Amino acid sequence: MKTKARVLVNGIGTVGKRIAHAIKLQSDMELVGIADVAPTPTLKTVLEPKGFLYGTRLYASNDQGYENLKKAGMWVEGKLEDLLRNGAVDIVIDAAPEGIGALNKQLYQKYGVKAIFQGGEKADVAEMSFNAIVNYEEALGKNYVRVPSCNTTGLIRSLSAIDFNFEIEYGFIALVRRSVDPHEYKKGPINAIEFDLHVPSHHAPDVKTVLKHLNLFSLAVKVPTTLSHVHIVDLLVKRETSYEEVLKAFENQTRVITLSAKEYPATSVVIEKFRDYLRPRYDVYELIIFKDLINVDGKRIRYVQQVHQEAIIVPENVDAVRAMLELEKNKWESIRKTNESLGIIK
Amino acid sequence: MKTKARVLVNGIGTVGKRIAHAIKLQSDMELVGIADVAPTPTLKTVLEPKGFLYGTRLYASNDQGYENLKKAGMWVEGKLEDLLRNGAVDIVIDAAPEGIGALNKQLYQKYGVKAIFQGGEKADVAEMSFNAIVNYEEALGKNYVRVPSCNTTGLIRSLSAIDFNFEIEYGFIALVRRSVDPHEYKKGPINAIEFDLHVPSHHAPDVKTVLKHLNLFSLAVKVPTTLSHVHIVDLLVKRETSYEEVLKAFENQTRVITLSAKEYPATSVVIEKFRDYLRPRYDVYELIIFKDLINVDGKRIRYVQQVHQEAIIVPENVDAVRAMLELEKNKWESIRKTNESLGIIK
Repeated sequence: MKTKARVLVNGIGTVGKRIAHAIKLQSDMELVGIADVAPTPTLKTVLEPKGFLYGTRLYASNDQGYENLKKAGMWVEGKLEDLLRNGAVDIVIDAAPEGIGALNKQLYQKYGVKAIFQGGEKADVAEMSFNAIVNYEEALGKNYVRVPSCNTTGLIRSLSAIDFNFEIEYGFIALVRRSVDPHEYKKGPINAIEFDLHVPSHHAPDVKTVLKHLNLFSLAVKVPTTLSHVHIVDLLVKRETSYEEVLKAFENQTRVITLSAKEYPATSVVIEKFRDYLRPRYDVYELIIFKDLINVDGKRIRYVQQVHQEAIIVPENVDAVRAMLELEKNKWESIRKTNESLGIIK
Repeated sequence: MKTKARVLVNGIGTVGKRIAHAIKLQSDMELVGIADVAPTPTLKTVLEPKGFLYGTRLYASNDQGYENLKKAGMWVEGKLEDLLRNGAVDIVIDAAPEGIGALNKQLYQKYGVKAIFQGGEKADVAEMSFNAIVNYEEALGKNYVRVPSCNTTGLIRSLSAIDFNFEIEYGFIALVRRSVDPHEYKKGPINAIEFDLHVPSHHAPDVKTVLKHLNLFSLAVKVPTTLSHVHIVDLLVKRETSYEEVLKAFENQTRVITLSAKEYPATSVVIEKFRDYLRPRYDVYELIIFKDLINVDGKRIRYVQQVHQEAIIVPENVDAVRAMLELEKNKWESIRKTNESLGIIK
């Protein structure tokens, strides 16, 4: 493909707006439009002259959405279906709310348009679940690909580094999840620790949609904070190793940063660092692993990591576009381009 | 000992006021007094006519404390040292702030008075660390005993049940700690998950002060809630077992209650239950294990438990008094008395 890939993002929420922004920053992609169904404050803000999607064409995801957006006085170019029918889109990145992506798929299939789904959808919505480091090559030319959730993506980054170097025999993950995102004020525990009723929580099985051979178990709770998830991990690996080897494995992994918990003793201090970096929306695309919370004892590896739930999946979506449209066959080259465009530290 | 045991509680904070209250409820003990160093709102409230320690004699823990309490117009009977010199106290329960107990010990030793210390003190402050279920008999006649912290006490209750029935080969515990107690408003993370910089956290080693043979590791974080701690546990045991067997092991353990997380999906809902029971200060002396969050797979046992940090150590302190003064040589008889007096469910 010589010309730029024509990408549309359907659903401009927490994830969709970030992906649309990231697509705009790629030299081999063009954001041909965004689509949504309602005139939310977010949608209005990002399309304002000061908004980071200003000038992007807005489409309605469906007929009702068209009425909603028109009624609110927003400038709507037309309906998504018409755009797809006209062959104006190479790939849709679907960031609609959980479960809606699977419904939208019928539309994409009808017009033979490729699509990327997010972690809120079940794994079987797509041909494969994607992580740039683990299975970029497998996604080359695929039509339907799913990028797993933030927690899963964070776990895959660290677990794949350990598994590649030491082979994981068994892993247990306790997830301490942020309850809601910063803008959500109507739900979530206020002064409580809420239990995830799934045993295991969906995270360990979801990691296995990418790292298929791993023997993992996870349990999760939600806590009253909005900034980040934290994972507490205990791994048994097949060969004895050392702190230095494990630290090196993490430091060699792209999109993983190691920090000292002595210097960054809470998730909020890490977030402050990325506000000071002037990252747009303080997005942390990198997985943070705390080097002074890593413990290695023979075949046991324990560590603690932080996942910025709003942002970590953004680079994976960009790489998935490149793989599915075969814009770039070499995964490291795609990762390099994505990392540079987003200012990812390593 | 035919007459009632004469008990004094030194330090009327979160833990001390509860223990003093519990001592008043024992038919074989007499609360001869409480001691403190400052006219805190808590101290004043519990001694008011409506307070649950109304009528209890107040002593000053030291000379400066005597001045402080006098100056505030509180009725002080005298100094703790004079009381100890006169042989008026059989045992002091020291609930002074972390580290102060070790300093106070010199005073208790000087007058040959037995003492119980709390989990904030290092294990070597006492001859042994105590848990009624595990080592009551070992405490018979001892002079200095330490009751480990709330987290440790909760872990000991569930781990001892599993170890007794299935033998623990290895255990990993992820602790999700409440940041502060309800009345503390000046510290703790507000919107963050704070890392415990100790690797392992002190909890696994502290459990081993009582369950000495266990192979355990723990990591901890603090979250913005005041109601309870939550522990996420992964155990490898020596023989294959089943969900039913594990549930039975927990249900057979005293001071452990199993609830459904479907019915009680957050720590706050459990606390609400005990408010509805009209427990004084909604104290939950029992360890809560969520039966629908238990997972058993061969030799692997995973579960999630809730610890009410303010109250769980209270019954252990009462039993420690009985053991150290040999008021009761049979541990189950002491546990029964304590449970009945406090309304502990089982």
